[in-house]
Amino acid sequence: MPEIAQGPQDASRSAPTRTEHDLLGDREVPQAAYWGIHTLRAVENFPITGTTLATCPDLIRALAAIKQAAALANRELGLLDGTRCAAIVAACEEVRAGALHDQFVVDLIQGGAGTSTNMNANEVIANRALEILGHERGAYGHLHPNEHVNMGQSTNDVYPTALKIAGIGAIRRLVAAMSDLRGSFAGKAAEFADVLKMGRTQLQDAVPMTLGQEFGTYARMLAEDEARLGEAELLIREINMGATAIGTGITAHPLYAALVRERLAEITGIPLVTAEDLVEATQDCGAFVQVSGVLKRVAVKLSKTCNDLRLLSSGPRAGFGEINLPARQAGSSIMPGKVNPVIPEVVNQVAFEVIGNDVTISFAAEAGQLQLNAFEPVIAYSLFRSFAHLEAACRTLDRHCVRGITANRERLRAGVEQSIGIVTALNPYIGYRNATAVALEAHATGRGVYELVLEKGLMAREQLDAVLQPDRLTRPQALDPAIAQAIAAA
Amino acid sequence: MPEIAQGPQDASRSAPTRTEHDLLGDREVPQAAYWGIHTLRAVENFPITGTTLATCPDLIRALAAIKQAAALANRELGLLDGTRCAAIVAACEEVRAGALHDQFVVDLIQGGAGTSTNMNANEVIANRALEILGHERGAYGHLHPNEHVNMGQSTNDVYPTALKIAGIGAIRRLVAAMSDLRGSFAGKAAEFADVLKMGRTQLQDAVPMTLGQEFGTYARMLAEDEARLGEAELLIREINMGATAIGTGITAHPLYAALVRERLAEITGIPLVTAEDLVEATQDCGAFVQVSGVLKRVAVKLSKTCNDLRLLSSGPRAGFGEINLPARQAGSSIMPGKVNPVIPEVVNQVAFEVIGNDVTISFAAEAGQLQLNAFEPVIAYSLFRSFAHLEAACRTLDRHCVRGITANRERLRAGVEQSIGIVTALNPYIGYRNATAVALEAHATGRGVYELVLEKGLMAREQLDAVLQPDRLTRPQALDPAIAQAIAAA
Amino acid sequence: MPEIAQGPQDASRSAPTRTEHDLLGDREVPQAAYWGIHTLRAVENFPITGTTLATCPDLIRALAAIKQAAALANRELGLLDGTRCAAIVAACEEVRAGALHDQFVVDLIQGGAGTSTNMNANEVIANRALEILGHERGAYGHLHPNEHVNMGQSTNDVYPTALKIAGIGAIRRLVAAMSDLRGSFAGKAAEFADVLKMGRTQLQDAVPMTLGQEFGTYARMLAEDEARLGEAELLIREINMGATAIGTGITAHPLYAALVRERLAEITGIPLVTAEDLVEATQDCGAFVQVSGVLKRVAVKLSKTCNDLRLLSSGPRAGFGEINLPARQAGSSIMPGKVNPVIPEVVNQVAFEVIGNDVTISFAAEAGQLQLNAFEPVIAYSLFRSFAHLEAACRTLDRHCVRGITANRERLRAGVEQSIGIVTALNPYIGYRNATAVALEAHATGRGVYELVLEKGLMAREQLDAVLQPDRLTRPQALDPAIAQAIAAA
Amino acid sequence: MPEIAQGPQDASRSAPTRTEHDLLGDREVPQAAYWGIHTLRAVENFPITGTTLATCPDLIRALAAIKQAAALANRELGLLDGTRCAAIVAACEEVRAGALHDQFVVDLIQGGAGTSTNMNANEVIANRALEILGHERGAYGHLHPNEHVNMGQSTNDVYPTALKIAGIGAIRRLVAAMSDLRGSFAGKAAEFADVLKMGRTQLQDAVPMTLGQEFGTYARMLAEDEARLGEAELLIREINMGATAIGTGITAHPLYAALVRERLAEITGIPLVTAEDLVEATQDCGAFVQVSGVLKRVAVKLSKTCNDLRLLSSGPRAGFGEINLPARQAGSSIMPGKVNPVIPEVVNQVAFEVIGNDVTISFAAEAGQLQLNAFEPVIAYSLFRSFAHLEAACRTLDRHCVRGITANRERLRAGVEQSIGIVTALNPYIGYRNATAVALEAHATGRGVYELVLEKGLMAREQLDAVLQPDRLTRPQALDPAIAQAIAAA
Repeated sequence: MPEIAQGPQDASRSAPTRTEHDLLGDREVPQAAYWGIHTLRAVENFPITGTTLATCPDLIRALAAIKQAAALANRELGLLDGTRCAAIVAACEEVRAGALHDQFVVDLIQGGAGTSTNMNANEVIANRALEILGHERGAYGHLHPNEHVNMGQSTNDVYPTALKIAGIGAIRRLVAAMSDLRGSFAGKAAEFADVLKMGRTQLQDAVPMTLGQEFGTYARMLAEDEARLGEAELLIREINMGATAIGTGITAHPLYAALVRERLAEITGIPLVTAEDLVEATQDCGAFVQVSGVLKRVAVKLSKTCNDLRLLSSGPRAGFGEINLPARQAGSSIMPGKVNPVIPEVVNQVAFEVIGNDVTISFAAEAGQLQLNAFEPVIAYSLFRSFAHLEAACRTLDRHCVRGITANRERLRAGVEQSIGIVTALNPYIGYRNATAVALEAHATGRGVYELVLEKGLMAREQLDAVLQPDRLTRPQALDPAIAQAIAAA
Repeated sequence: MPEIAQGPQDASRSAPTRTEHDLLGDREVPQAAYWGIHTLRAVENFPITGTTLATCPDLIRALAAIKQAAALANRELGLLDGTRCAAIVAACEEVRAGALHDQFVVDLIQGGAGTSTNMNANEVIANRALEILGHERGAYGHLHPNEHVNMGQSTNDVYPTALKIAGIGAIRRLVAAMSDLRGSFAGKAAEFADVLKMGRTQLQDAVPMTLGQEFGTYARMLAEDEARLGEAELLIREINMGATAIGTGITAHPLYAALVRERLAEITGIPLVTAEDLVEATQDCGAFVQVSGVLKRVAVKLSKTCNDLRLLSSGPRAGFGEINLPARQAGSSIMPGKVNPVIPEVVNQVAFEVIGNDVTISFAAEAGQLQLNAFEPVIAYSLFRSFAHLEAACRTLDRHCVRGITANRERLRAGVEQSIGIVTALNPYIGYRNATAVALEAHATGRGVYELVLEKGLMAREQLDAVLQPDRLTRPQALDPAIAQAIAAA
Repeated sequence: MPEIAQGPQDASRSAPTRTEHDLLGDREVPQAAYWGIHTLRAVENFPITGTTLATCPDLIRALAAIKQAAALANRELGLLDGTRCAAIVAACEEVRAGALHDQFVVDLIQGGAGTSTNMNANEVIANRALEILGHERGAYGHLHPNEHVNMGQSTNDVYPTALKIAGIGAIRRLVAAMSDLRGSFAGKAAEFADVLKMGRTQLQDAVPMTLGQEFGTYARMLAEDEARLGEAELLIREINMGATAIGTGITAHPLYAALVRERLAEITGIPLVTAEDLVEATQDCGAFVQVSGVLKRVAVKLSKTCNDLRLLSSGPRAGFGEINLPARQAGSSIMPGKVNPVIPEVVNQVAFEVIGNDVTISFAAEAGQLQLNAFEPVIAYSLFRSFAHLEAACRTLDRHCVRGITANRERLRAGVEQSIGIVTALNPYIGYRNATAVALEAHATGRGVYELVLEKGLMAREQLDAVLQPDRLTRPQALDPAIAQAIAAA
Repeated sequence: MPEIAQGPQDASRSAPTRTEHDLLGDREVPQAAYWGIHTLRAVENFPITGTTLATCPDLIRALAAIKQAAALANRELGLLDGTRCAAIVAACEEVRAGALHDQFVVDLIQGGAGTSTNMNANEVIANRALEILGHERGAYGHLHPNEHVNMGQSTNDVYPTALKIAGIGAIRRLVAAMSDLRGSFAGKAAEFADVLKMGRTQLQDAVPMTLGQEFGTYARMLAEDEARLGEAELLIREINMGATAIGTGITAHPLYAALVRERLAEITGIPLVTAEDLVEATQDCGAFVQVSGVLKRVAVKLSKTCNDLRLLSSGPRAGFGEINLPARQAGSSIMPGKVNPVIPEVVNQVAFEVIGNDVTISFAAEAGQLQLNAFEPVIAYSLFRSFAHLEAACRTLDRHCVRGITANRERLRAGVEQSIGIVTALNPYIGYRNATAVALEAHATGRGVYELVLEKGLMAREQLDAVLQPDRLTRPQALDPAIAQAIAAA
């Protein structure tokens, strides 16, 4: 699969260029590019996935917010002049509004612990700020990517902080999608509140319940997972801005950490907190591991729900056939009329991907060494894919499947009436010995419990109907003394 | 690896037996056994791991607590007579105190969604209660494993509830072990508070820090993980007693769920909560998935810490050689005097096991179908192994390694003095251009920044010593105007 | 779960002891113990799982075979005298025959890259050899665990070689269990060869097949996996004896590697090969990773098979109800007569464990550094558990489930007759348009394709019976020109 | 991360359209599109990853090859007329040459077991063939996507066969990249053949080796993994063309399976084999699981190699500092002159992704039910990403890192000379007692073994130099009798 990374180096061959310089020497950068030499080298070094930063606008916006907050903090500390600060802020606001995202060309999976992501942002913002100030791109003597845009920062605080802000945005969108899906399940639960059916344990017929209870479960699971995601958000509100290189804050002003956090909270609207121990916070990926663990939990349960939907809709004849999923596309070119549960199937697959991503994240987190985890980029790559794909999966499950589910009420009712399991409910009235005899005869003959109880004269039809009404079968309740007495008297 | 399950069937060959009966017919059970026919069949059906319930006393005690609580609740509802209730309670208290654990002979990995575990408990408690009442074992006409010990219960509420209570015990013991380990790390952090060393990012020399900061990080990580485990405990305080078969509470008295929870909370001392939606709670394994996710987080970070300890103690000569781990055993039969970091190594391996267990748990949780997850036994098996091995790992790491760590102070100081990275701290005083020149010359010649700065007359020795003192290097701080002025004036 | 490692140190408190010495000083060892001071320290250092070497007789026998082969090779090279060699060989043969396995007391999960396992073997064999020579245990002046039993060896060649020899034994036993299970599936395939049923894709009714074809698939899958395991055995026939510490063979005689391999092949009966590059072979765990990958493949497919068995036997009424698994135990204390698929369920769980173990092994293999992988013990622990549990799972699935499976022939035949999918087979005769019309009417009305085709006069009953006979439906075939002509003529 | 799938529905809003029809009704398709209504619905149903089939040209070419082979086989069987066959073949050859890949717009992760992928191919090829025949797109009366392009096929044989053909291409490209990387490692092994250094076990100094041996190991590991990939290719040469819906070959001509395999082998140049049991082959994903397992093996070892490279190049001062990786980009904006091992770091991350993908594939394979695995699309998605990213990782590691590695010969030699471990080599000459005394004094005083042996007069300088020459230290060898004699005589 030759996924060729569309590198900026190709573009530079014929187009007009400018010369930029770094520790390794000079390179030609396309004059049209807002990115610079650090980005150029990174694109050449990491031609891995072809998935660039541009595919992750949350992250780009978070980077711009951080650069803006840092400029404001540095200005307040008297370290950055007003002109440069204003230009940087203006450039950041443009990027946050969606501009120049195509200039974020580095691969999401990259070496260097995110340095190339940080430098891509520094260069794009610097060059846009230079334009705003009336200078040419590349005229870094006027405003420098490192000295001014990156002032007081290090990749090692900027990058994890950006991942957290982007992650919070992703959590909130995922929760919104889950909440809508939950609403649809709850709607179905209400719609099916009176549809009696057989519950199953271990795929074997158990005791009656309502289809409404079954769908209510799926809504409830989502509600709990939404709450867990809300708790996970709290874990990533803790940032390490001010840590600089390794958390000791070397070269940072003592007041800087608090100031930049304050500005960043204002810009993003997120109540961010500065970690108590910045050395620890700079190297620790535990919060990402746990967020991924919660996503895995969401995936596991969503997959279980889709397994159930596929099972309940199996058939149409030689299966459970209890519910119908809306037909979304022809299922087969060879079998006329076949329609498949394609939407739950795609959701299952997203869940499997998320579970695999969680293993990738565990590996990357475990592999961190000493004062920094060099593998945060693959954590970001995996985490953001999990978020995005889960959100898309919830949306398509909601819109293209759950809302259109219908119940085969006849078949469901017949299932209960023919079931042996309902004899459980008669235990308190006819006794365990009689109930067992009925169960065994039903199993051996293929006949129904209902008719056998009537035939044996164990209960009258009205008594049976009373005990077997949904309200009595699907909720806890004490013995009905009138019926018990009547039977005893019979 | 022929792990032969030590089955009770062998014992029954020669010893005196009693006859027991179930749906499938009659079987001989050793007269000496407290377990009965259901347990016998389970042992025959599941000769898998050889790891029986007896290896998991937390779980046995939790089962006994549940049986005791149910008996009390049923007594209060008038469903169980006082004599039988008293006998059951007495038997449960004995089991909770440690008696008869060797009678829990079923393999932890079992089919049937935990039914065999529940029946093993029902049978042992029934037979002990029968003894207390002066009857023979097996005289179930007087007191029956299902009808009396299991009254108002189903495996489907008993088993997950027992796992949760046992899990809470395990969490608390693990937190205690982590807390002790944290104390040892914190002690080392204090001991090494003044030991300056080079911090590293991406295994490359970065900027100075103290060894105390480095060890403080390990303490801090544990503190955070302890907090996360505390939050995880809240998730598994929610139980589904009263759900019976599938959560609808069929055959249960309406007041039973609340009553049994209350008694169980009293007996265990845990503030248990009844799930709002018992149908959902009966099938949902999300809480176990998340608890395992938090254990994986603990494992990942513990492993990272041990990787660091092994790295920092590498050498003794051709390595980092910054710290010494206490020698615990001879490292090699072929290389005289070699001592290896065996304790961190074993902790790493436990971490790898916990991460693998987490994948097992994800699989088992995802595979649950409809109203019940049939695969909770392997969840329990994996989770309890993760808990136990992590606790043991923390204990051995604490006692056999961390407490005895010493620092090679000379080498650490030399590392800083020879380091190029300290030039970062001089930036504000001698300027980025001079700093870079010093760095490049240091790299090319192998000489030290300290001597080069002196030699070039960029700073005086007193100024240099002032700027490079630990307090200035390892914390954020503003420019020292006196020094800056003096240099400017020079 | 306080799994307390039964340490030898407890036993030593009151029993008579002998004093042994190592680099770290003196320790008292129980006089009755065959193990010595190195084992004692290891037991104290690694109180992790409570699962000792003694649970893994394959590994113990492999260690003894290696010590025996090394003694013979050293004797031939003139490095070991005949008396000591004979005593070592005799001790090894006893251990290989099953003696003294209870003396292998070190935890399977251990630090030190297996050194403690190797030393446990060296000490037990040395002390038994001393006894044979008429000396007291511990009288190492006469015959030394390191100098004589371990002569020419290092843990770094002994341990991986022992794992490989033990692994080959485990592979062969697993293949034998799979082969028996395959025989049972093949028997069922023959028994059900004429039972027509609906095949399903994506849980939706598709086209007919025989139940024999379905069960034949399970046999075939096992056959393929057996072949893959046979290939995997080839990977671990490559050993690194002669590598000594890091593969350079330091201190080893140039002829030793070939000689010890030859003797070891004779003793074990396995055609072992010496790795071409011993430095590479000493650090590379790739073979274990791949063997585990093949075990995971086996697990995945076994689990899929059990999922199918549970699905096909779902019901008895509100499910597929196509086959019956033999009843193995009562399924529920609350629902009379309920029988669950407990054997497939336990096999599923073993599969989940094996898949998790594979992740553990990946982590451990990846974490190896430079000239040695320090984490082979957890690879061994995981791999041997996977082998043992899979073997047990295959055995219980074979004996307690597959052999007793029966088919619900009526229901299966009815499923085909009522199915809409069989219309696919009529396509070539009545045309796609007519077939579609029949399918749509069948779906809308709930009526059968068979009766609709007759009712519409599209085919005669004899024609329909001819086309729908199993032989025609379940194999490729050309159009029957006679029938086609007759229909066209009608 | 709003990865918005660029759906064809947007394009259809204003552009001219044609009307297409399927079971669910009519839809407008852009007149310019080669895809049709089935593709349109799939794009709407699966807006998941934004990664379309177009990113996977191997798969598109494989699909076209299959369609071409099927057309030829059907023509030979007299089922397809010459005109249509020629047009289909011509269209397929264009696609195989790279045309129309942008028309493959369905998301790689999709429900429906690959049906949408197959239909996307059927529609594009049909419409291109229609054009070739002089008809309008959508004029399916002349040549139909299902009836003619898909003749004799089902998604259930086309899709897995296409994955296998694409996988073989991917294996071969990966092997080529690994082979080049191996060449670079082998080159370095030759270059460093005489550079003596300390080998390490468990991160502790062990015994000497050459840097050439160390790099030779990395070459050797790759060679072995290339061989394993070659074996894995054999597994996926087995195809199931002719299986149609579920493997029974319903509606297929008895000669078709052999014929289509033959044509497909000719077209692709791959010696394909038809599976013996097509029912089994249609549902079994074992081959993909094993291929992924081998990729995981490659990833694990590549990651281990990169861990070593990062470790050996750690420093430059407070680390191992044994080798230098080529500088590829500035490492830090805050620390002047810092250069990081960014290339190995990115390779590590790809390895972590591949290991996670393997878990995803295990989940998807295990979840297959009955006659088909509905989750093959996510297997394809994960597998092809693993292939592509590993190939890219090998290429960048080769070109941007390994080729430019240099050795710090002075430091390496000093490491050996200062090492205590070399005393192991003196054992045979000065005896274990003297060697131990030297080792202990060296450790206590920090002095070198070399100088201590000289100082104590245990060996003469010439003798010491002779014994400690690389050839003697880094290979097995017998005692040098001349030196031994001279020492004994001294």
